[in-house]
Amino acid sequence: MESAKFLLLLLSLNVVISYIATAAPPQTCPADVSSDCGSGEWEGDFFPGITKIKYEGPTSKNHLAYKWYNAEEEILGKKMKDWLRFSIAFWHTFRGTGGDPFGAPTKMWPWEDGTNSLAMAKRRMRANFEFLDKLGVDRWCFHDRDIAPEGKTIEESNANLDEVVALAKELQGTRIRPLWGTAQLFFHPRYMHGAATSPELGVYAYSAAQVKKAIEVTHYLGGENYVFWGGREGYQSLLNTDMERELNHMARFFEAAVAYKKKIGFNGTLLIEPKPQEPTKHQYDWDAATSANFLRKYKLIGEFKLNIECNHATLSGHSCHHEIETARINGILGNIDANSGDPQVGWDTDQFMMDVGEATLVMLSVIKNGGLAPGGFNFDAKLRRESTDVEDIFIAHIAGMDTIARGLRNAAKLIEGGLLEELVRKRYESFDTELGAQIEAGKADLDLLEKKTIQWGEPKVGSAKQELAEMIFQSAI
Amino acid sequence: MESAKFLLLLLSLNVVISYIATAAPPQTCPADVSSDCGSGEWEGDFFPGITKIKYEGPTSKNHLAYKWYNAEEEILGKKMKDWLRFSIAFWHTFRGTGGDPFGAPTKMWPWEDGTNSLAMAKRRMRANFEFLDKLGVDRWCFHDRDIAPEGKTIEESNANLDEVVALAKELQGTRIRPLWGTAQLFFHPRYMHGAATSPELGVYAYSAAQVKKAIEVTHYLGGENYVFWGGREGYQSLLNTDMERELNHMARFFEAAVAYKKKIGFNGTLLIEPKPQEPTKHQYDWDAATSANFLRKYKLIGEFKLNIECNHATLSGHSCHHEIETARINGILGNIDANSGDPQVGWDTDQFMMDVGEATLVMLSVIKNGGLAPGGFNFDAKLRRESTDVEDIFIAHIAGMDTIARGLRNAAKLIEGGLLEELVRKRYESFDTELGAQIEAGKADLDLLEKKTIQWGEPKVGSAKQELAEMIFQSAI
Amino acid sequence: MESAKFLLLLLSLNVVISYIATAAPPQTCPADVSSDCGSGEWEGDFFPGITKIKYEGPTSKNHLAYKWYNAEEEILGKKMKDWLRFSIAFWHTFRGTGGDPFGAPTKMWPWEDGTNSLAMAKRRMRANFEFLDKLGVDRWCFHDRDIAPEGKTIEESNANLDEVVALAKELQGTRIRPLWGTAQLFFHPRYMHGAATSPELGVYAYSAAQVKKAIEVTHYLGGENYVFWGGREGYQSLLNTDMERELNHMARFFEAAVAYKKKIGFNGTLLIEPKPQEPTKHQYDWDAATSANFLRKYKLIGEFKLNIECNHATLSGHSCHHEIETARINGILGNIDANSGDPQVGWDTDQFMMDVGEATLVMLSVIKNGGLAPGGFNFDAKLRRESTDVEDIFIAHIAGMDTIARGLRNAAKLIEGGLLEELVRKRYESFDTELGAQIEAGKADLDLLEKKTIQWGEPKVGSAKQELAEMIFQSAI
Amino acid sequence: MESAKFLLLLLSLNVVISYIATAAPPQTCPADVSSDCGSGEWEGDFFPGITKIKYEGPTSKNHLAYKWYNAEEEILGKKMKDWLRFSIAFWHTFRGTGGDPFGAPTKMWPWEDGTNSLAMAKRRMRANFEFLDKLGVDRWCFHDRDIAPEGKTIEESNANLDEVVALAKELQGTRIRPLWGTAQLFFHPRYMHGAATSPELGVYAYSAAQVKKAIEVTHYLGGENYVFWGGREGYQSLLNTDMERELNHMARFFEAAVAYKKKIGFNGTLLIEPKPQEPTKHQYDWDAATSANFLRKYKLIGEFKLNIECNHATLSGHSCHHEIETARINGILGNIDANSGDPQVGWDTDQFMMDVGEATLVMLSVIKNGGLAPGGFNFDAKLRRESTDVEDIFIAHIAGMDTIARGLRNAAKLIEGGLLEELVRKRYESFDTELGAQIEAGKADLDLLEKKTIQWGEPKVGSAKQELAEMIFQSAI
Repeated sequence: MESAKFLLLLLSLNVVISYIATAAPPQTCPADVSSDCGSGEWEGDFFPGITKIKYEGPTSKNHLAYKWYNAEEEILGKKMKDWLRFSIAFWHTFRGTGGDPFGAPTKMWPWEDGTNSLAMAKRRMRANFEFLDKLGVDRWCFHDRDIAPEGKTIEESNANLDEVVALAKELQGTRIRPLWGTAQLFFHPRYMHGAATSPELGVYAYSAAQVKKAIEVTHYLGGENYVFWGGREGYQSLLNTDMERELNHMARFFEAAVAYKKKIGFNGTLLIEPKPQEPTKHQYDWDAATSANFLRKYKLIGEFKLNIECNHATLSGHSCHHEIETARINGILGNIDANSGDPQVGWDTDQFMMDVGEATLVMLSVIKNGGLAPGGFNFDAKLRRESTDVEDIFIAHIAGMDTIARGLRNAAKLIEGGLLEELVRKRYESFDTELGAQIEAGKADLDLLEKKTIQWGEPKVGSAKQELAEMIFQSAI
Repeated sequence: MESAKFLLLLLSLNVVISYIATAAPPQTCPADVSSDCGSGEWEGDFFPGITKIKYEGPTSKNHLAYKWYNAEEEILGKKMKDWLRFSIAFWHTFRGTGGDPFGAPTKMWPWEDGTNSLAMAKRRMRANFEFLDKLGVDRWCFHDRDIAPEGKTIEESNANLDEVVALAKELQGTRIRPLWGTAQLFFHPRYMHGAATSPELGVYAYSAAQVKKAIEVTHYLGGENYVFWGGREGYQSLLNTDMERELNHMARFFEAAVAYKKKIGFNGTLLIEPKPQEPTKHQYDWDAATSANFLRKYKLIGEFKLNIECNHATLSGHSCHHEIETARINGILGNIDANSGDPQVGWDTDQFMMDVGEATLVMLSVIKNGGLAPGGFNFDAKLRRESTDVEDIFIAHIAGMDTIARGLRNAAKLIEGGLLEELVRKRYESFDTELGAQIEAGKADLDLLEKKTIQWGEPKVGSAKQELAEMIFQSAI
Repeated sequence: MESAKFLLLLLSLNVVISYIATAAPPQTCPADVSSDCGSGEWEGDFFPGITKIKYEGPTSKNHLAYKWYNAEEEILGKKMKDWLRFSIAFWHTFRGTGGDPFGAPTKMWPWEDGTNSLAMAKRRMRANFEFLDKLGVDRWCFHDRDIAPEGKTIEESNANLDEVVALAKELQGTRIRPLWGTAQLFFHPRYMHGAATSPELGVYAYSAAQVKKAIEVTHYLGGENYVFWGGREGYQSLLNTDMERELNHMARFFEAAVAYKKKIGFNGTLLIEPKPQEPTKHQYDWDAATSANFLRKYKLIGEFKLNIECNHATLSGHSCHHEIETARINGILGNIDANSGDPQVGWDTDQFMMDVGEATLVMLSVIKNGGLAPGGFNFDAKLRRESTDVEDIFIAHIAGMDTIARGLRNAAKLIEGGLLEELVRKRYESFDTELGAQIEAGKADLDLLEKKTIQWGEPKVGSAKQELAEMIFQSAI
Repeated sequence: MESAKFLLLLLSLNVVISYIATAAPPQTCPADVSSDCGSGEWEGDFFPGITKIKYEGPTSKNHLAYKWYNAEEEILGKKMKDWLRFSIAFWHTFRGTGGDPFGAPTKMWPWEDGTNSLAMAKRRMRANFEFLDKLGVDRWCFHDRDIAPEGKTIEESNANLDEVVALAKELQGTRIRPLWGTAQLFFHPRYMHGAATSPELGVYAYSAAQVKKAIEVTHYLGGENYVFWGGREGYQSLLNTDMERELNHMARFFEAAVAYKKKIGFNGTLLIEPKPQEPTKHQYDWDAATSANFLRKYKLIGEFKLNIECNHATLSGHSCHHEIETARINGILGNIDANSGDPQVGWDTDQFMMDVGEATLVMLSVIKNGGLAPGGFNFDAKLRRESTDVEDIFIAHIAGMDTIARGLRNAAKLIEGGLLEELVRKRYESFDTELGAQIEAGKADLDLLEKKTIQWGEPKVGSAKQELAEMIFQSAI
């Protein structure tokens, strides 16, 4: 029956959501919310009992306070908040349900009513802004389909989106802006073979339409960047895939996005987010270098930067530091998705970054890059499935922000101390010579170099002093 | 409101299911099924146009025929069907939806009505038996919650289960039996911290009640084995875990299961299915050796065997062959979950085994073990998310069965050829001596061995002939 | 004292060496070689008892015969030998000792005298050509330092090289040529921090001199390609490394090599051999895409192709097929180092390729590429440490060649059968339309695509038929 | 000719060696050592300019001082030196050369003369004790063949060993003792197929003789433990291996070692050191659980404990913390090889532990175990190949000791703070009840548990508070 089918479509598309209605959640409405729970006009006080998070310094025992992140404090001539430009990921924080491939959702926040309705979308948006406010964070990131329900048709989806976006615009006020927006091109079954790289032309077109709208709303909300994560732009098997043709399609798709961005006057940076695999066996934006090669091959290198995610870095066999440095020296470091994986597992765990050593390495690169603006640090991280208290949302973000803030402090200490830099400078000083300059200018041919070699005999080679470098590094932590 | 909540609970618990109702499936009812699609009393002809799959031999081009599996043909004195004892996994084949962590379900088989109702459960069971019949397979495996919907209470869940099981018993007839049954102790949020190893006593009890019932129905249906897969028996972080206490609980739980099995006269083999991780960071039944250690430590070694899954083997850093051999020489090889992972990805892909080399290695072990009975080969494998035609279900199973059947043929050829065996025999022949026997009997002490060493001088050491062994092996494929 | 130092240098440095004095090699001179063993003018008969390897077909039980490689047989219009262009790797086959990080050398071939003398180098070269002749292979690959001993100075090293190369030229006759030559820039301690990327200018110069000479001798011998494997062009730690500066140096180095090649009229292809890591933590030529990005960034893309090694591919997290395809569609597939890794181990095992499935995938790409010429298949593979019989050298190469030859036969069968190709064609046929052509020509903007999307509604998405593709693929094996 | 062969054996076999003649070690004798360098009677002052390393506290900038390790300071009622019981690994520190599979040795310490003579062995032993003295460390570990050259026969090898051991005994004085000794059963070609698991009986006997002697000298020197690392007790391929027979041999071998230990009155603990692979594809002592299973199967569990190495832990897919906890709760935690791997590489890098987070986790377990005595922390770690200054040896050890000492301080802080412990206690408190006790005593059968489940209804499940646990943990670092 058509109306029944319509209802089905209306209700859903986000498995996560549809499930909430039906699972027996371990945490339900608090007793005092009674029959209003999960319904009604809930305009505020989503997080009762939690006040604005303040900086209390490293000796504080308060789980709901910053020990290292002091927004207005200056480090190396810039405020911490301006170095870090933190952003909250709407999808993890407000749409994450704790579901995994082997289990149902575990979270049902008090404000959720188990539907994927427009009303619920708006209530959730209010929760988001209350959260940003209490955390003292100025930026947020979103996918189109996280914030508003998919409709029966793209026109309906767009109308839904417009309605929620209007509310978001209002709630943003003058302080808050999207760090970036994006289109979700991987969840719906239509995208099962990819979006821009789907073998179905209709899907290519559909994703183009969706990106068009997502760029528009990002622009409307004052977003500073726009991200492409090609979760299904890749293959499961080469046996049934024409990789070359798919990559050509992807390039055409990006060109069209660039043209559209310019057409509507959106000046935000376009970002590609590399990930090696999962859900596909091979994702075309495998890592920073692979993405850079793609951009260069198709002459898109000036139009895009990268959004480096630490968990994706380690899944591709690199340290997060390596991926950030690779992006930086290719001139395309745009944004960082601040999270962390488990070094022993082979899938994307999207944990909050809790390792201060890793955060220090990351910040060394960011400082070298002169900061990330107009990019920033987006918390593309989720609560563990088993963390089901509302306060856990705060604890996780506070711990993540403090870890990166502490990384900034450590990196600054290292830079000010100068020992690491001096160690590196000395290693390369043989190139700070006339012949070095000649080589670096491309003016030393093999004949010349052979002549020098014969003249000099066996070259001297010094110690790499790696353990000393590690000792210096650890001392700053 | 209670009735609303009741409805919610009634409707679901399997995210997979609830989603089906709401996703826009890429494949819906065929045009000719019209308004009956997904509803009504569908008692048969789930797979119209597909007739009983027959053996046509290696030259056949028919995708819906066996090229290598010839059930009644004798290999090494036993019928192929008795060596292989194939079984279909109800959960993948009839409850798999194609959902993954980044995407909604993609499959909606014509017989599905989008509900998780009892009526739907029964219709699905009919589809299962039609499938078994057309494939010519005599065994099936199930989790309690796959075949019948979870109710509001455990009594209701049990009642649901009883109703579906009664139908299954009838449909089994005299030919078909469960290879094994099991309880699903990982999907529901109550199991998020584990079942037998949950820190919540109430969950421990709940899972005990569920196992009790699952053993009962397995027994009732004439099942030959009962499996424990401890998907959430493990930890996400050692920081909040008392691993020792949890392992003690798991041992107590297994002891209680053993006692109950004996009490009700169930003679089936109890099987533990090792897996290293996913969904947890560390699963207690990591691999065959870890599981054996657990069984020995708690004096359970005589009561359990192992169900080795190939994809789990490779996730734990071992070849499938290694895990099967480890189980075999520990005397606990009970069953094989015949599937395969992708060598480049770090999660459980549960692909159909398509590599004849791997299948040949597996069958070499199985033949050495004298077969697997009362265990067998269960197809714990699923269609790729992107394979959405009904015929794909058949194609995948046929290809998987043919691969293993071909492995059996190859292994038999290798054994009959005798070259590999002879190569191994010769490598160890220095132990087929008097002193060798003394050593193997534990009667050669260090003094004696030192004396011999001094007497003999430098020992001769022959080539391992690995490349020759590989050449012989490949020649049989 | 100079002479003491010289002796000291002559004798040692290495724990390995200290063992040499005591290790009893499992295979020494055969009794009948008596006092000549390992010395004297050994001009031939290195492999007594082994005659020219012949094609005997798949049913042969002779370990010293080809079952699948029939050099002159035509497949898809080209002789097998012209598709495959096999080459022997001098370093593994004639300089491999079986040493590993935990153990001393295990092999002492009868013709070795335990020295690294010029006389020994020449004798070894004769063994090489006898081996090529008996195997019926026309190509060989070498590093400069494998074939001639390093001298006290670069002039002495070059003189040594000249002497051995003159002999090689003579022994090559009219039939045999190097597939490629290369300079060994990783073994000597001077290269411990890299060669072109060493922080020591003197080392940069030294490696330039060495490359100059290596290109010259490759040219002199009629080599068809020249390879760069940057084993130590990378880093162990980013803490003490200026990655950007090192990459710049590497680009300058390659530019100088290109200029020199042109200057001397060498028309061979320059090849970069990607490898992700080992010996370094990160090697700059990580994989095909990373290498392509480097080549594009520094405008070297027209001057270089890639030498894809299968074991390196899997170490970088890709299938070998993926890396070959990536090189192919970037227009830089130049050569294949035909070997294989162990899917469960994390280092370079350089095993002979023995998996006919993998070989078939490789050959599908090679055929799509129209062959590899002027590149070919180099056996960058070594005997297992424990394989110590002279005949093992033959067995390994025969098995490796047969595996690839069988892969060629299978790939041809698949292509002629047409089923896979048709399956792929159908998947993409929606793009074989007017709008598809418009999209592929970069003429479909987001407005147009949105309009079409609204007009069409939800797109249809077909099954990926992956299991069918796998069934078809396996049927050809 | 015998003398030719002797020379041949003396000079050698190895490509490595051939390089030795030509490699210019990056560090040779300092100018002021002149002609004495590498020869003569060097009885002391191996480390001129380096004085005894002292504790200077966290603010010290002195690279040659402890910032965290204060030997006599009490932590949780025990001196730091008694918690940590540091030991130096003779093989890495005094026999490591920097050679790797792709490169020649890089280190030539001033006291080395390039020989493997007895005189050199004794001089090296003096260097060892000067190093221990300057570092303030009381324990050392050794393999038999590290400290004394292998002779032409086992009698000669034993005589060499006796001579060096006599000197070591004298140099030990009253303060220093071996933490453990071991026999090197993997380097010599005779062990290429294993030692206790070699298919050659003569090799089994040889290794027994070697172990006999190594236990004797360990006993003579006052060693507190004796270690078995089965580097080649495993397989490269199952095709040519009888794994069951090999494991039986290994058990017989261990039984003989136990009997011998008792016979001579050696009361030290026997330790097995798990490692998953490398050099073999599969090593029988894969990880802690696998080793425990072996010990239980062969009734050896009371006679052995484990020596857990952190780098081996991560290679086996576990965190170091996991392996230590697994050993602890199996009652077999004996010793820790304190090192660290690189999370992105798949081989044994044996780096010094430099991550204070990891060290804190390790120390949490060690404290829970009540310390490690008679085991301790052995620095089974080596300088990077590229670290070639003598002072680097000190820097690396100081940094490693400080890291673990800092881990001890942090762990004590966490334990004293009590927050983590309380979090864990609360998670399990439902078991601290009457029914919990009944379950844990094995007295709750399935009937009872089902009854309770029906009575209670859906159990409540609390948050795992993982992020809070991580926040608490990080706060202590």
